Amino acid sequence: MRNIKLSIQYDGTKYDGWQKQGNTDKTIQGKIETVLSKILNESIEISGSGRTDSGVHAYNQVANFYAKSSITLDELIRKTNISLPNDIVIKSAEIVDESFHSRYNAKGKKYLYRIWNSKCRNPFLDRYCTHYIDKLDITAMKIAAEYLIGEHDFSSFTTQKSKKKSMVRTIYSIDFNVNNELIEIIFFGNGFLYNMVRIISGTLLEVGHGKISPSDANEILNKKDRSFAGYTAPAKGLFLYEVEY
Amino acid sequence: MRNIKLSIQYDGTKYDGWQKQGNTDKTIQGKIETVLSKILNESIEISGSGRTDSGVHAYNQVANFYAKSSITLDELIRKTNISLPNDIVIKSAEIVDESFHSRYNAKGKKYLYRIWNSKCRNPFLDRYCTHYIDKLDITAMKIAAEYLIGEHDFSSFTTQKSKKKSMVRTIYSIDFNVNNELIEIIFFGNGFLYNMVRIISGTLLEVGHGKISPSDANEILNKKDRSFAGYTAPAKGLFLYEVEY
Repeated sequence: MRNIKLSIQYDGTKYDGWQKQGNTDKTIQGKIETVLSKILNESIEISGSGRTDSGVHAYNQVANFYAKSSITLDELIRKTNISLPNDIVIKSAEIVDESFHSRYNAKGKKYLYRIWNSKCRNPFLDRYCTHYIDKLDITAMKIAAEYLIGEHDFSSFTTQKSKKKSMVRTIYSIDFNVNNELIEIIFFGNGFLYNMVRIISGTLLEVGHGKISPSDANEILNKKDRSFAGYTAPAKGLFLYEVEY
Repeated sequence: MRNIKLSIQYDGTKYDGWQKQGNTDKTIQGKIETVLSKILNESIEISGSGRTDSGVHAYNQVANFYAKSSITLDELIRKTNISLPNDIVIKSAEIVDESFHSRYNAKGKKYLYRIWNSKCRNPFLDRYCTHYIDKLDITAMKIAAEYLIGEHDFSSFTTQKSKKKSMVRTIYSIDFNVNNELIEIIFFGNGFLYNMVRIISGTLLEVGHGKISPSDANEILNKKDRSFAGYTAPAKGLFLYEVEY
């Protein structure tokens, strides 16, 4: 059995997220497993580095699977991409050690949140950005973001159900790329709780709008209570950007 | 009656093109007329600077219409954009002379053709680019393009039905923007025949691929026969970019 690691890119607009459930045709994992099983003529199950929610995109999702097939990787990529729909693509494939697991071995992740900050919406970015009409104060957003960097209990910034598991995560950096009306926020951390990037992004948007003051970010963190943070920013602005091993 | 000029941006993916026909809900013109008529409470007919085909996009389509309403332009834009779907947006509106006609007064037009030239397709550009896998020879494409600049009979580069009208048009420039795997070709001319930009783009793609030599562009032009030119490049890579008055 070979253990094969895939790098996958997708537009999540039309899907019920990454994870297989019910109608597999509506999930990214389901779509890929169906295609791989058919091409390799064996039942394939892939493990992703993590779930992405309905409507969330990925520049680089990583997944691995075990297969008996001796197909070359070039052939695997070519055949899989022909069969996959246009909104999902396998960017690369490599043979990895049999102990490699895309989720358990992940050391860090980068997420990207994109905002179209303009009076006028943009039809070409509508699927890939949150549209925010009011002019955002990016300096204030950057100050608020600083409070969140480091190791913290992020209970205020998650809708994770089970409170048994640790809510402590480390954010290494939060970077802003501003290109006229397009604002990109890149979050790099050792892991993120359920909805964490979207709730932090929503909170930063409320800071940028002046509804929350930058230093409140620190207080929200200390409350360890979701109700104090900002809204959950829409899924369509979120991209799983990179997984580090 | 005021004559109001609109600048309109749209993602044409889901529509049967600009021009109203049959089910108005499936055309850009139909969508906008329905919304304007409702907001202004009078029957509105808009004239576009030209048609765009099914799946073709517009950065800046221009249209004008006559209305009795005394609504302010800001209010008009705001209300219209709230009612329009996310893939169509009114970017601006202005009162123009009553003799202004968006089609008859147009002095020049710019079209953009976009190509994603990579082994790997791009899920985020799939609606807005033609994917071309084989590496294109851009120098050859530029040489071929040079032959087409100027005043010519473009019979070879159109599927226009009526041969009664003049096939003579002037192309002022064909510019290439190359940014890694993304190739953008900008066509600027006094007017374009039906499918002309897509057939020229298809021909340039075949030149880039080595199927047609650059100097053949001149011969194809002289043949005045569609069958000598390259294929009609897909609609999804085409944008009406600007209309000049």
